Amino acid sequence: MAGERSPALWRLYVITDERPGRGRSHLQIAEAAIRGGADVVQLRDKTASGRRLYDIAVQMRRLTRDAGVPFVVNDRLDVALAVDADGVHLGREDLPASVARRILAPGKIVGVSVETVEEAVMAEKDGADYLGAGPVFEARGSKADAGEPLGLDLIARIRRNCRLPIVAIGGINTENARLVREAGADAAAVISAVAWADDVAQAARLLKRELTAADRGL
Amino acid sequence: MAGERSPALWRLYVITDERPGRGRSHLQIAEAAIRGGADVVQLRDKTASGRRLYDIAVQMRRLTRDAGVPFVVNDRLDVALAVDADGVHLGREDLPASVARRILAPGKIVGVSVETVEEAVMAEKDGADYLGAGPVFEARGSKADAGEPLGLDLIARIRRNCRLPIVAIGGINTENARLVREAGADAAAVISAVAWADDVAQAARLLKRELTAADRGL
Repeated sequence: MAGERSPALWRLYVITDERPGRGRSHLQIAEAAIRGGADVVQLRDKTASGRRLYDIAVQMRRLTRDAGVPFVVNDRLDVALAVDADGVHLGREDLPASVARRILAPGKIVGVSVETVEEAVMAEKDGADYLGAGPVFEARGSKADAGEPLGLDLIARIRRNCRLPIVAIGGINTENARLVREAGADAAAVISAVAWADDVAQAARLLKRELTAADRGL
Repeated sequence: MAGERSPALWRLYVITDERPGRGRSHLQIAEAAIRGGADVVQLRDKTASGRRLYDIAVQMRRLTRDAGVPFVVNDRLDVALAVDADGVHLGREDLPASVARRILAPGKIVGVSVETVEEAVMAEKDGADYLGAGPVFEARGSKADAGEPLGLDLIARIRRNCRLPIVAIGGINTENARLVREAGADAAAVISAVAWADDVAQAARLLKRELTAADRGL
């Protein structure tokens, strides 16, 4: 496996989103991100119909399985089930994590978005496998519903209060990626920093290098 | 059971939709419709988040279970699974019926929207349990994506080519309900004819009477 199933070993988490993707498809973003070293790929599309999301997910499942990279579907647990994805990522407006845990097969991954230490502790109780924590920095407008940046302090505080792997999200790029890991995050999730880049694979590669610097003792 | 599980025995199929509901909630529409004799209730809300739909579905499941009325969720198979609904209804933009059949437990109901005989035959092959066929008449603007009315002839043609129970939809009211059954439909699905009525329970009652007139030899 090029990627690792266990969220604690993830470093670069790439969310495909066609809106900031400069005309690239979900599949194109995922393919290039994986070439650049993405450890996990999340399909997110809040506007696609169930049918279209399913059609995309079928292709992304084939791609990620061939690459040995875990594949997570945002929000739509039914689509995740339909294509045998490795898990789901649930935001604050999605199904509760405890419900997803009950429906999914054992071993599947449930990620939960959190903005506070309290939500992180609750997600851990609900059976989440990892936390999507943020927004840490100001995002480049890819997520209209992203709130005020909560800073590296959020990551540090969650780290002190939770055992779950932390995937930091929100405005993370090559300049600040090391800071995010130093604050206690295991991984960084990016949307536009990769999908918006001139060269998606190269953007992923540079980010991955920053995110793994600490693992390599740099 | 006040209602019957088998779609062939349904006559009045009520879709809760808050938009034409004059401020009534999904639950209020469902409760009154069941009092008026609805044989099955479908929760449809194309704009609600997964979390909100789940919260509503939990309440509707409780209501319908107490009343012994089958409960179907539109589109969101995951929400149907989460609340142990009796089935799902899938439109043209939703997950394929064959996929839903694979994910759902045996005995759960899969309904599929069709507009042509070819789609009806395909749905039967895909393992659908009933067909939602229409729009038969011009609907009262409750469904912006409803196409041109296809007429009673559509029902008659599907009846000749398919064994599945037919739930006719689109502009059905007390004036034309008998015609729909005479054309070969087992049931009629209504949205605004019930949700929009001054008295939801009474509207359901009158419709049910028309739809069961043939069964009672009238």
